[in-house]
Amino acid sequence: MPAPTASVIIAAAGAGRRFAESVGRRPGTADERLSKVFAPLAGRPVLAHTLDRFARVRAVTEVVVAVLPEKVEWARGEFGGSISGGRPLKFVAGGSSRTESVASALAATDGGTELVAIHDAVRPLIRPAVIEEALRVAIEHGAAVVGRPVDHTVKSVPNGRRVAETLPRAGLWLAQTPQVFRREVLMTAYGRREDVVGQVTDDAKLVEAMGQAVMMVLGDAANIKITTPEDLMFCEAFLAAGWPFDDNPVSR
Amino acid sequence: MPAPTASVIIAAAGAGRRFAESVGRRPGTADERLSKVFAPLAGRPVLAHTLDRFARVRAVTEVVVAVLPEKVEWARGEFGGSISGGRPLKFVAGGSSRTESVASALAATDGGTELVAIHDAVRPLIRPAVIEEALRVAIEHGAAVVGRPVDHTVKSVPNGRRVAETLPRAGLWLAQTPQVFRREVLMTAYGRREDVVGQVTDDAKLVEAMGQAVMMVLGDAANIKITTPEDLMFCEAFLAAGWPFDDNPVSR
Repeated sequence: MPAPTASVIIAAAGAGRRFAESVGRRPGTADERLSKVFAPLAGRPVLAHTLDRFARVRAVTEVVVAVLPEKVEWARGEFGGSISGGRPLKFVAGGSSRTESVASALAATDGGTELVAIHDAVRPLIRPAVIEEALRVAIEHGAAVVGRPVDHTVKSVPNGRRVAETLPRAGLWLAQTPQVFRREVLMTAYGRREDVVGQVTDDAKLVEAMGQAVMMVLGDAANIKITTPEDLMFCEAFLAAGWPFDDNPVSR
Repeated sequence: MPAPTASVIIAAAGAGRRFAESVGRRPGTADERLSKVFAPLAGRPVLAHTLDRFARVRAVTEVVVAVLPEKVEWARGEFGGSISGGRPLKFVAGGSSRTESVASALAATDGGTELVAIHDAVRPLIRPAVIEEALRVAIEHGAAVVGRPVDHTVKSVPNGRRVAETLPRAGLWLAQTPQVFRREVLMTAYGRREDVVGQVTDDAKLVEAMGQAVMMVLGDAANIKITTPEDLMFCEAFLAAGWPFDDNPVSR
């Protein structure tokens, strides 16, 4: 089987209100340090780390990053027009929601790739071996989501803080990114996105709504999503400790 | 209101099979480095860190640690008979399950304390401010469980790796420890433990089964449970980075 080709979409258009408020300033200001996507991590913007992780995957042929509309020109100047090997790096204006941002980025991808991987910009500790496993599973099954089995007791707390019940945790997984799809599967799902009821918290939900198989791929606990300044400090700590500690082939 | 008094039970009798296997040796050997409870973290056993966190809480009047039966004498020699301020530190033989170990420890506590807190030995990064908030809530409501709201998309994956559906995550929390109870509530729940159907993954489930209110208390993402050598490296990284970064009063 020839190696698959993959376009990568990086979702980086979140306004980061919670992050900006935590560092004491209003979002929407010009200072890039207030954006979790561009905040410094081990001396470089978070996004630079994320891009490097995908650049290490040979199947990746291009990367399209959806940023806030007012950040497009700045980002092009800051990050340039390619990743290693001369593969294109494009910046596009995100939309009013994550789903619309991904749709904009999807429209800007090269239609000739077999796979499309969607990743949160603010998960800079993704391991290339995990990305590769997700690509492999998506080629085989059509859709793959990186995540972790739930290893805590799950409590249902519908209102306030009082526990209503303890849920069986067997068979529950927490989804991370990347989420990888065969291109035609994702195009079809996004074409029908207006029909899906309820909040779309991840792209795979759109694909599941089509009846298409979606397979989980085991990721790392360290693949955290930076939402607060404390999360950023966790990532600093992991990198300082030498993460990835041991870049073995991923577990299956 | 006078300050409450609390007995602390530390569950440390898990055989640690997964941890020992990960470091390449069989569990049950004499080498304490193979036990996640006694493994070195920043130069001291994991349990020593956990004990220090509780020792910083003034309401704590005693600590009872349930360890493997063959470790009781050794642990007494290693950790001594008190924590700071001359408060008693006892080691008791754990039972055949976590629930039985906690029951043994409960029987060894001073019956005069108002609260009993139960904590996993292998969560050494618990913040004293979080413990104190859990004690406060348990005095008020009878039972308090430290945990975190689910901030990932939750997938139901009943068999193998294929996603069956995406669950609404609103109102779902993941339970950590400590779990704190008014003494009479916990005594009653444990007295009825034979009647609870299904696997008891946490002590609060026994209390919920009585119809007693159980309230969630917001903990830290860093309060991880050490299950694998990699988890231990995360804890090393957090401590090296200066955790707790900012020991502010806990969020409510």
